[in-house]
Formats: sequence, structure tokens, C-alpha cells
Amino acid sequence: MRITILGGGGFLGQKLAKRLAKDGQVGGRPVTGLTLFDLHAPPVPMAGFPVKSLGGDVADPAQVAAAIPPGTDAVVHLAAVVSAQAEADFDLGLKVNLHGTLAVLAACRALAQGPRASGGTPPRVVFTSSVASFGGGQEARLEDDARQLPGNSYGAQKAIGELLLQDASRKGFLDAVNIRLPTVIVRPGRPNKAASSFVSAILREPLLGLETPLPVPEDFAVWICSPRRAVEWFLHALAMDTAPLGLDRGINPPGRSATVGKMLSALETVAGPAARKLVQHAPDPAIEAIVGGWPASFTAERARRVLGFSEQESLEEIIQGFIEDDLAATKADRGL
Amino acid sequence: MRITILGGGGFLGQKLAKRLAKDGQVGGRPVTGLTLFDLHAPPVPMAGFPVKSLGGDVADPAQVAAAIPPGTDAVVHLAAVVSAQAEADFDLGLKVNLHGTLAVLAACRALAQGPRASGGTPPRVVFTSSVASFGGGQEARLEDDARQLPGNSYGAQKAIGELLLQDASRKGFLDAVNIRLPTVIVRPGRPNKAASSFVSAILREPLLGLETPLPVPEDFAVWICSPRRAVEWFLHALAMDTAPLGLDRGINPPGRSATVGKMLSALETVAGPAARKLVQHAPDPAIEAIVGGWPASFTAERARRVLGFSEQESLEEIIQGFIEDDLAATKADRGL
Repeated sequence: MRITILGGGGFLGQKLAKRLAKDGQVGGRPVTGLTLFDLHAPPVPMAGFPVKSLGGDVADPAQVAAAIPPGTDAVVHLAAVVSAQAEADFDLGLKVNLHGTLAVLAACRALAQGPRASGGTPPRVVFTSSVASFGGGQEARLEDDARQLPGNSYGAQKAIGELLLQDASRKGFLDAVNIRLPTVIVRPGRPNKAASSFVSAILREPLLGLETPLPVPEDFAVWICSPRRAVEWFLHALAMDTAPLGLDRGINPPGRSATVGKMLSALETVAGPAARKLVQHAPDPAIEAIVGGWPASFTAERARRVLGFSEQESLEEIIQGFIEDDLAATKADRGL
Repeated sequence: MRITILGGGGFLGQKLAKRLAKDGQVGGRPVTGLTLFDLHAPPVPMAGFPVKSLGGDVADPAQVAAAIPPGTDAVVHLAAVVSAQAEADFDLGLKVNLHGTLAVLAACRALAQGPRASGGTPPRVVFTSSVASFGGGQEARLEDDARQLPGNSYGAQKAIGELLLQDASRKGFLDAVNIRLPTVIVRPGRPNKAASSFVSAILREPLLGLETPLPVPEDFAVWICSPRRAVEWFLHALAMDTAPLGLDRGINPPGRSATVGKMLSALETVAGPAARKLVQHAPDPAIEAIVGGWPASFTAERARRVLGFSEQESLEEIIQGFIEDDLAATKADRGL
């Protein structure tokens, strides 16, 4: 199985790459090659199969085609401009999130149909859509057939990407699994331009011994998942039988709905009351306006009962997972 | 009010242009200029205001910008590659239906924000989306918040266009009203590449004294509207207050659900039993596969009760309307 990860230099892309290197297989099929593609050539994990690393522009069809060479069996498309950045720079969001996905579509289609056609089955594409592609807000508990009515450009562009890849799947150009990722916590590194950056920061920064602002009230609820869970879902999406999806390629995976207060209680349980005290209320209406529009809960019945996506672990386990997987590297990275 | 009609050479574009020329106003605001744009420069109606006619490619941003000059108050975007054609030629569908709409977005945004900025309110954009952007099929009666799960590329591209224009409205780049048009009957002219072409043909061809095939059973139901009603809806969408739309720019207008059998009974009522006998059963699974996926009914409550869109007239009135408005010209056009 030859796999390409677009956005392979990012947080989740690197975790997936390392996991593929460690396991050497996906769903029982050996991994025979991996290509990592990002704005800058991503770090390459030690692996028992060849790994290629490429830097380039995901909106450039030629560069994307080079990252998805003939013989590619699967593409994990994580490359994106995140929520607050896509909101601040509409053109950049369209370029990366829309034209980038068009380039992925074209490259995958060329594998199956173009002059370089390999015949056989169309490549699996695992696309990370987002909870931000929905509206509904704090009160919502969305069913699997809920309409996507995004209140932000990032979410609109993700919903568009889903429609493109869904239609391309129907046409047989590729075989898409569109996973609407919850807000992923705990992200390592530093606060970034995602409007949801604070949801990780209120857990990560205290574990680093640093103060951090909380821009929303403690009863604010968020639909979350852990990096460990996201990687498990990607592996499942790479290997799963897509026949039960039919026309509908959009999947709300079984994340967890949690209030900020519950997250801080879990932080206190894992790291003590001193950690919690480092989180300081600092209301930010601009952040709340974006994140407050995202639904705080999904039923996720189809992913659970029909498609076999695994359940999200507890808040305490999420925090413990960050401590085990990412705390030391984050400290080193930030010179702490 | 300066108006541009993209797809102004088409059936509905020409009807709207003639109506604007006749009325000289929309919602009480005088029309002060009209630009018609299509693949070939469209015919120009006699009007009490200047009318410009341009031929060009709707996927070319420079040509679209030329069709939407500074001072434009409203754009009616009807330019599209229709259903069966977009299904047969995926690239052409993407080019016209997706990149064309991106060009419209860019041109409208430049009016409000670019170097040619006119200030003031963003231009109204009336975009014709389609019943084909939904799934559901014969059994469906869709609520206003129904998810768009298109089973054809045309519908997917229309749903994408809606998301683009909806997000651009939220950003203040333009002010979109996305009307999901039912199947419009009775179309004049000849059968075309729309999968739904037969729904007009079974009424039009008999009125011309010609035999015509019926590719679906008589109990097959279709969500329809008349050209007269579509033009009324466009005029309403040009003049309406868009504040009640909020984020949600998608409108299911109050069309009519009718079986083919009911349509043929109405034909018999208006034109006699000899007309009906010209319609001959000729099952076509390819046509039924496309059209059979479109929902046959909508509640259309929001358009009716909140937004003031007018009700569809009866089947007999639709047929009578075709006879009054289009039969003579169609006969002349086809040398009958």
C-alpha cells in the first residue's frame, strides 16, 4: 500500500506518518511507500519502507500530482488553512482549501483515468472536513443527516471539499471518506491561528507551567477528539469497506461533547489545582463568535454503529495521552 | 438599478430581459441599464434604458468582470452547463458551474472592495441553484433545512456555488439569493441536454403536432415550475429584503409536485385527446437514474410564509402560458 499524506508536516500528519512507520501496515495490508507533502518538506520518520518528503504548494496541480505518483493507493488530505486564518484571508483560504482540494481530485483522477492510468481501484482519499462546516451552536445536537450551514469561510470551504470528493467518488475517480473532525485536543506546540486554539491551550499551557487565557465561559461546550483518536480514525478510514457509505461520504465520527469546565476539572484531576489556576478568564467575543457557531454535539450514530469508528476516550485519558506523547517534545521545542 | 444577466441568451435569461425592458423597473426602482452576457452575444430587447450585449466565457474572470462593470447593482447568474451535459463532461461542468461562479464572486467582490470600489451596498446576486442539488427521490418531501446530497455532478456543482455565494454574502462581498429552481416547464425550442428535458417535451412536442418519447412511468412525480413563475421569482429575489435570510441564502421556492400522468391529463384538457396520444412510452433507465434521484416534493414553507415568493399556478395554466408566450415562436424557430 503506497500512501501520500498532504499536510504531512503538520501535527496530525506527523503523528500518522510515525504510526504508519511503526506499524508497517494498515488493516493488514503492508505499507510499501509513503510520501509526505507540505509547504516545507516534512521530517521523515524511520520506517521499514521508502519515505519521500516534498515541499510545495497544495494549490498547484503539478506539485500535487508529483506528490501522488502512479501506484498511489491512498491519499490522506490534511492540508488546510485553518479557521481564523481563512476568516482573515479569504483568498488564501479559497486557494488552499478549495483549489488545493481540486488539485487533489485532479491528481487522483489521473491515477485512475489519465495517461498514467494504473487501472484497478480508484485511490482511497481520507479528507479531513470539520465540525466548523456545520452551524447550530451551543444548543445543537446534530443528527447524521444534518445540513451543513457554515458560519465561517473555513467551514464553507471544507463543505465544498466534501461535495467535490463525494461527487468524484460517485464518478469513480477516487474513493473518499470525508471525516468531519471535532476540535482536536491537546495540540502540542504553540497557540495557532485556529479559532479553537484555546481549547488545547487551556490544557497544554498549564501542563507547561504557563498562564493562558480562556476566551469563553466555563459552561461553553465543545465537540472534541484526541490526536490519538484522530489517528485511529484515519487508519480505519484508510482500510474500511466504503460500500456501506453509498453516495454519502460525510462522516461525523464519535467524538465527545465537553464543557470547558469539565476539561479544567479533568486537568485538575490529572495535574492538580495549581495547574487549573493558570487558566485565566479573558472573554474574547471574536473567538466566541466563530467557535460559538459550531455545534457542541453530534449523535454520530452512523460512524459508531454502521461504520465501526472507535469511541473517544475520556478527558482524563486525553490529558494523560498528551503528557505521554507530546509534553516532553513541546517543552523542548519551546525551550522550557 | 443596473442589472447584469449572466446566461442572458438562454431561455429564462431572455424572458427576464424582455420583462425588465417591458416593466422598466424592479420593485419600484427604475432599471437604468442592463448587460446581457452569454457564450454568444445575446439578442437585445427594445428597452427604455441602455442594453449591452456581450459574448464570452463565464469561467474567465476578466470577461465576467467586464460584464459586471462598476455601478452594477444586481447580477442574475443563470449561466450553467446543464445536468446530463455536466454528467457526460465532468471538466466542462466544473469549469462553467464552479469556476464560473468563482468568477462571479470575484467580480462582485471587486465592485464592493477592489480598486474600482463603488462603496455602498454589495451587489445583489440572484443565483439559480437546482432541485438536482438534493437527493431523496420519488418518495421525498423535503423540509427547508434538508441536506443537499446530490447524486449528479450538476447538482453537486450547484450546491458548491450556493456555499460560495452564501459565504461571500456573510463576508459582505455580495448579497446572494440562491433559488433552487424546480424543473422548469414548458421550455420552448428543442429537446436539450438536461436530463429533465422530457418533462417539457411531453407537453411541447404534442402542441407542435409531433410525437415524443416518455422515458419514465406515468406515476413518476416531478417538482416543477413555469417560466412565468421563475421570472416572477427572479424579480422578487432582485427586490426583496435579504435581512430575513440571515446566514441561510438557500431558498426552496413554492413549485408544484405533479406526476407525468397529471401533466398529460392537463395536456388533454387544454389540447384534446389527440395531443396526449402523441406521447409514447419509451423507458430510458439512464434518464430515470438521474431524474429519479431528485426529490419530487418540497414543503417550501420559508419561501411561502416568510419570504413572500409567489405560488405556482396550475398545470393547465402552465400549458396555456406556453401556448400564449412561446408556441408561435417555437413553431417558427423549428420551421413548423
